Amino acid sequence: MVKSWATSPETLGVDLHIELGGAGLRSGLMDALREAVRGGRLTPGTRLPSSRTLAADLGIARNTVADAYAELVAEGWLTARQGSGTRVAQRAAARQDRGHPHRPPARGKPTYSLMAGSPDLASFPRAEWLKAARRALAEAPHEAFGFGDPRGRIELRTVLADYLARSRGVYASPERIVVCSGFVHGLALMGRVLRARRVREVAVETYGLDFHWKLLTDEGLRTPALPLDELGTHTGELGNSRAVGAVLMTPGHQFPIGLPLLPDRRAAAIDWARATGGLILEDDYDGEFRYDRQPAAPAPLRPHGKPVRYWKGQVGALQGLDPDRVVYMGTASKSLAPALRLGWMVLPESLVTEVAEAKGLGDSCGALDQLTLAEFIRSGAYDRHVRGMRLRYRRRRDELVAALAEHAPHIGVTGLAAGLHVVLSLPPGLDERSIVRAANWRGLAIQGLGAFRHPDATSAKWGGLVVGYGTPSDSAWAGTLEVLLDVLAAVAG
Amino acid sequence: MVKSWATSPETLGVDLHIELGGAGLRSGLMDALREAVRGGRLTPGTRLPSSRTLAADLGIARNTVADAYAELVAEGWLTARQGSGTRVAQRAAARQDRGHPHRPPARGKPTYSLMAGSPDLASFPRAEWLKAARRALAEAPHEAFGFGDPRGRIELRTVLADYLARSRGVYASPERIVVCSGFVHGLALMGRVLRARRVREVAVETYGLDFHWKLLTDEGLRTPALPLDELGTHTGELGNSRAVGAVLMTPGHQFPIGLPLLPDRRAAAIDWARATGGLILEDDYDGEFRYDRQPAAPAPLRPHGKPVRYWKGQVGALQGLDPDRVVYMGTASKSLAPALRLGWMVLPESLVTEVAEAKGLGDSCGALDQLTLAEFIRSGAYDRHVRGMRLRYRRRRDELVAALAEHAPHIGVTGLAAGLHVVLSLPPGLDERSIVRAANWRGLAIQGLGAFRHPDATSAKWGGLVVGYGTPSDSAWAGTLEVLLDVLAAVAG
Repeated sequence: MVKSWATSPETLGVDLHIELGGAGLRSGLMDALREAVRGGRLTPGTRLPSSRTLAADLGIARNTVADAYAELVAEGWLTARQGSGTRVAQRAAARQDRGHPHRPPARGKPTYSLMAGSPDLASFPRAEWLKAARRALAEAPHEAFGFGDPRGRIELRTVLADYLARSRGVYASPERIVVCSGFVHGLALMGRVLRARRVREVAVETYGLDFHWKLLTDEGLRTPALPLDELGTHTGELGNSRAVGAVLMTPGHQFPIGLPLLPDRRAAAIDWARATGGLILEDDYDGEFRYDRQPAAPAPLRPHGKPVRYWKGQVGALQGLDPDRVVYMGTASKSLAPALRLGWMVLPESLVTEVAEAKGLGDSCGALDQLTLAEFIRSGAYDRHVRGMRLRYRRRRDELVAALAEHAPHIGVTGLAAGLHVVLSLPPGLDERSIVRAANWRGLAIQGLGAFRHPDATSAKWGGLVVGYGTPSDSAWAGTLEVLLDVLAAVAG
Repeated sequence: MVKSWATSPETLGVDLHIELGGAGLRSGLMDALREAVRGGRLTPGTRLPSSRTLAADLGIARNTVADAYAELVAEGWLTARQGSGTRVAQRAAARQDRGHPHRPPARGKPTYSLMAGSPDLASFPRAEWLKAARRALAEAPHEAFGFGDPRGRIELRTVLADYLARSRGVYASPERIVVCSGFVHGLALMGRVLRARRVREVAVETYGLDFHWKLLTDEGLRTPALPLDELGTHTGELGNSRAVGAVLMTPGHQFPIGLPLLPDRRAAAIDWARATGGLILEDDYDGEFRYDRQPAAPAPLRPHGKPVRYWKGQVGALQGLDPDRVVYMGTASKSLAPALRLGWMVLPESLVTEVAEAKGLGDSCGALDQLTLAEFIRSGAYDRHVRGMRLRYRRRRDELVAALAEHAPHIGVTGLAAGLHVVLSLPPGLDERSIVRAANWRGLAIQGLGAFRHPDATSAKWGGLVVGYGTPSDSAWAGTLEVLLDVLAAVAG
């Protein structure tokens, strides 16, 4: 079996890619460590993390790491001394040519990542999830193992209806919910249904994700861009035109700009939908992660120097304003893990049958994961996990803001109130592309706002750096932040 | 939470639908039992199964059943006497109007089912599956919780390559495998890919599943029917025509006819594919369940009175003959459970990228189930489960054959060598539709061959009854068989 592991950069100072072909995990780890020393990425005298820390970071058994360390000490690559921990041996680098089998250099993968769109994968609650799976498997009726309802398991739809009502103000009932394999699946289903309803255009935001737009164009829909100004996306230009049949938006936390849609803009969107019979597709991708209080030193994005008015209230789902005109779409990809491939749509009643038919038997989702998630939410484990992650992400965000205030005071931060990413606004004369290039050169994967701009957008361009601070593991976070600050200091200097 | 349970008919003599709204499981069970008594489905004096038996059948705790029984005894619906078990009280039926809240009558669901296409859902190996999930969760690297490879987890593709090679003679490597959510998903992906390649027609078999054909037509493909004669499906009429771009077949065990495709027909199909550049889509839906030895008294189907030559060897996958012209598709739906939504495609190398792209992020499958299945196969639990189920299904098949020989000697049986269903051939003058109607009237869901016939097929019609003996639970099997025999005896008499 081929498996691969990768350390978080901060744990070891470098990233370590471990691949296992026939050999065991210990010998794969030993090879990777030898290679890091041989290639100079781990220099003589470097103190290695404790076996406990490295094991936790890799998600492998501590003994495997301890054994690998012991063997490398025996081989002379490492030294272990009471009180000073395990270090790279002083002579180790000189061993470069001493007959260890040649290994190809590490792949061109970046060492650090601040790409937005992923939660911290290392904090998936494995033990709690297994506990929920055990209960779900024990309690499932036999029929749960059959083909089942294309809308998804009733158990999950029932707890979701309750959860979405209390956490996001969504008007939901189990009958209106269709479970899908994440947001992208839900969007594809909506694209198919809209196309079948002879809709030709779905308007999207000026900034967003190109693979969402592509999904819609693959279904034969045009995706004109809605204008954006300093108050956010506006639907005013749609007027009462029926040319556009639906609008795709991120009202809770515009992706990637990071601001919530203001109340009058929300009302305007609903007015348009009511007047034309159009639909609003609400992508509530990170609705769980709101931090409520303003951060210590908010530095709102100032496109063209204008100050930004900023709505400070709790931001509920747009869907609550008109459940018959809004398709609410949520996902477990940010709150738990993308690997679950579980999302949910809360639909206007009139759409449920069409969406369930478009989904069909073909691409329904595994019932056992659905039952497990239902039990996970029901037992309170989901709320606990979200609360814990919210604190963790919030701490990172605060550290980022504090570090920027100290080391890069010329940089503004926006989109602080929620989510797993912020946007850094750059002083005039500082081009986001040059920063992205400098960051990549340092092994830091990061994107500028330009990467998210709709190709046909006509609104004024915004500049900025999108920082997905949710992406690194806890152990990688400090090192990643350091590289970011270095890059910003270097381009400013 | 709304949940629903259903008893196996044999356990209680009637089926019991238990639905839970706000109330608990015990009170739902009590309502269902009261309703069965009130409605006359459980008559006074009827002995109820032990609480252990009913609990096992429902998959709920024994105490819940025991408590429900005790309360119903206290209410006067049931009686419990040492040595005679729990019975419906003599006066119970008379209580009909005594103020218990009105419940709608049970849904029109049939009590017994011999519908083909489902395994015995009650035998899903819950404990073994949970064990595999525990190991998979413990060993998964952090990156496994991310979006992942649209082809599916490498761990699963690696063990599948090995498993399919040794169990089905499939030429497989992890790089050629794409994991999908069951056969229907795989077929939809192939439909999309073929359409993008400008294929217009995919030929299908004279007998098959209409929702498979519909999937293809939904993708814009025509689905002409291949002719069928007593030796099986033949591709001869395709000649060297390129009008048909692919052929969908069930070579291992024609569904629903039940016979394997004979060697010369296999060779002819491959010849056609090679000559025209066409593809064969091999639906190996129940490849795991072969019984190898001929049953005691084989009674092959005799359409038009002609005897059928019948290939007795092990039937490997067609794909082995030409891995570059055959798309092999397998599924966990028959060997484990449809609810897993896991299937696999072994593709010609030239198709892998297209299929992975068609699948995309949108409808990939949950990684945790994939890792669990990989561990389930790796540990040998899959082989053990399949072996166990093969014995169980085989025993049922033998009981069916023996019972028919004794009680309905005028009925022939075919498709005995493999799978979870057989076809009963009927003597002249006996119409399958009248038997299906009689069976439905007795609460037995079953289908005739006519339900599987392609609407445009021109080959001679075959008559017969498709008996999915894999569908009932172990506890329901004997009762279901009895009803079938009653129906056959009644129509014969």
